[in-house]
Amino acid sequence: MNDQKRHEYALNKLGQIDSEAAKKLIDSMQDISPDLARYAIDFPFGEIFTRPGLDLKSRELINVAALTALGNAVTQLKFHINGALNVGCTRTEITETIIQMAIYSGFPSALNGMMAAKEVFKMQDSED
Amino acid sequence: MNDQKRHEYALNKLGQIDSEAAKKLIDSMQDISPDLARYAIDFPFGEIFTRPGLDLKSRELINVAALTALGNAVTQLKFHINGALNVGCTRTEITETIIQMAIYSGFPSALNGMMAAKEVFKMQDSED
Amino acid sequence: MNDQKRHEYALNKLGQIDSEAAKKLIDSMQDISPDLARYAIDFPFGEIFTRPGLDLKSRELINVAALTALGNAVTQLKFHINGALNVGCTRTEITETIIQMAIYSGFPSALNGMMAAKEVFKMQDSED
Amino acid sequence: MNDQKRHEYALNKLGQIDSEAAKKLIDSMQDISPDLARYAIDFPFGEIFTRPGLDLKSRELINVAALTALGNAVTQLKFHINGALNVGCTRTEITETIIQMAIYSGFPSALNGMMAAKEVFKMQDSED
Amino acid sequence: MNDQKRHEYALNKLGQIDSEAAKKLIDSMQDISPDLARYAIDFPFGEIFTRPGLDLKSRELINVAALTALGNAVTQLKFHINGALNVGCTRTEITETIIQMAIYSGFPSALNGMMAAKEVFKMQDSED
Amino acid sequence: MNDQKRHEYALNKLGQIDSEAAKKLIDSMQDISPDLARYAIDFPFGEIFTRPGLDLKSRELINVAALTALGNAVTQLKFHINGALNVGCTRTEITETIIQMAIYSGFPSALNGMMAAKEVFKMQDSED
Repeated sequence: MNDQKRHEYALNKLGQIDSEAAKKLIDSMQDISPDLARYAIDFPFGEIFTRPGLDLKSRELINVAALTALGNAVTQLKFHINGALNVGCTRTEITETIIQMAIYSGFPSALNGMMAAKEVFKMQDSED
Repeated sequence: MNDQKRHEYALNKLGQIDSEAAKKLIDSMQDISPDLARYAIDFPFGEIFTRPGLDLKSRELINVAALTALGNAVTQLKFHINGALNVGCTRTEITETIIQMAIYSGFPSALNGMMAAKEVFKMQDSED
Repeated sequence: MNDQKRHEYALNKLGQIDSEAAKKLIDSMQDISPDLARYAIDFPFGEIFTRPGLDLKSRELINVAALTALGNAVTQLKFHINGALNVGCTRTEITETIIQMAIYSGFPSALNGMMAAKEVFKMQDSED
Repeated sequence: MNDQKRHEYALNKLGQIDSEAAKKLIDSMQDISPDLARYAIDFPFGEIFTRPGLDLKSRELINVAALTALGNAVTQLKFHINGALNVGCTRTEITETIIQMAIYSGFPSALNGMMAAKEVFKMQDSED
Repeated sequence: MNDQKRHEYALNKLGQIDSEAAKKLIDSMQDISPDLARYAIDFPFGEIFTRPGLDLKSRELINVAALTALGNAVTQLKFHINGALNVGCTRTEITETIIQMAIYSGFPSALNGMMAAKEVFKMQDSED
Repeated sequence: MNDQKRHEYALNKLGQIDSEAAKKLIDSMQDISPDLARYAIDFPFGEIFTRPGLDLKSRELINVAALTALGNAVTQLKFHINGALNVGCTRTEITETIIQMAIYSGFPSALNGMMAAKEVFKMQDSED
């Protein structure tokens, strides 16, 4: 695979998760580090998310889990909560994932993750 | 629900994941803090894992994700890799989950998670 | 103990720490995950904080320490700084706890913890 | 205060916590970075632990809490569990501190902290 | 060295990195914990940054790296991005440092670090 | 750039840092996840380390800083301490980097990082 092909795969996969995400990411990095935007699109979505062996819904749930547990990247957590919904996860699957993190990374991480979910759900509701 | 009921539910659920886990955990805490063993069994497995809305396979995959990402609890990570296999996750679903963590918590966490998976898979192979 | 009893114990204990906390937590989770609010009240305050062997002042100081060190849950840190004051810790005990974290989790975590304390102290002063 | 005075205060304070700790730390850093050993003795024990406003028992309990929660420095955690006992904390105060961390940093961190306590208690028993 | 001498060295060194930093830090801690401000100035800048063996530019780049990787102290990260520029690091050296953290602590930490850099660069541009 | 080209660049760059590292990494992942080994070689060393704008010595020092601060990947920390020496960093630059982390992530992380450096230096001495 060459870089151009990977980038196309990445944009296509990312489009399934959030159709405006690539544009937003590229815009935010435009005048500081376009290369980081490119890496952050091409490696995750062009290499990893396109792999067989784990469906896209599961891939998004494990992201919600990991980012809730780490607890220091709320922007990315909201992005993947939104993405999880877009690829077909139910709101219940997402809130169950976040509740379960109370066991592994503590109640504060779960409560903060749930506040992020609340904002994303509200945003989606207001768009309907 | 009363405490005794919750404990029974927890032992039953934990038995589906790893039939010897409850005994091992109780033994390890026997002479230091039996109460912590009890909490660590009853709350996760009696309250959370018995909830509807997310199947047991997904619950174990998100644990593998979170513990790989946190990177500081290898004993528990191995327990849940083993548990994931026991509840029907494929080895590929587990390794895909771990690979994906490279994106969110970095390559060292993914490589260390994979070494944990390697040990668990080898142990299961030697038991066959 | 049954769930209802635990919940009563929890509300009572939580009331000693912050009389409006239970209501605020339940409200914030109302339309997203009332169950997480229930767990976040019942397990910590109905099971753990009611245990003998460590007084409530010490329990709150070690929370301030842990949340300052972890550095990724400022809402919960402020709650427990406020709670520490309410159960009888002095401002000095709290600031000494936070200063000491500079040793174990670095100066940034201590400085950010102190800014949280500053806000809580100011809020309490304005209420007097 | 000058450096020599601070070092004397530090050695004296550290001697109250663990009479061989200073020697062990200095020895371990001897051929790699004696300066780091000096900083790791003088700043914590010469500046912070000698401050009024928080008693030595509380200072050691909050260290046990923070190091259990952080979960990535087991050597230092054991040192402070041992130190907590030496300055008069009961075993129960220590195990209660560790149990409580399950709430704030998750069960794996609490279980691993408890295993550290188990080893320290056993070591102290074998010395009697 | 005595405390007064260390403080003078610290203020001098800190002045090379950010001429207003000491004042801002002291002001922010004024009515809550002047001692923490003093420690946060004297130990880092009076003891460590004045050591030979590593030039000031490298010292600032490794701070940018560590604070980007830890991901939970954005105020301090911005301070050291600004400081890195002030002691002669290029914008490219800073953005390369942040990009590289994607490997070790994941893409979210690198993207958030880059947003911090973007704000600092913009602030410096508006001052010109 | 196509994948094969990137892999060649990566092996070449990694060879400058540690001539046996690629082989060891590939071997360790051989029977569990060869793809992760490939990603862990190609993205870091084929994309990032080959970028202009930051010299290889600085790239290795910032890795030592970040991995010392994170404190949960000692294998990778030792690899980059060894790599830092191989690309021309002095032992002093490495120990200064580690000492400085005491400020940002606490003394335990710095002491544990220094123990890693001690082992690597000893290993290099025994090979001479």
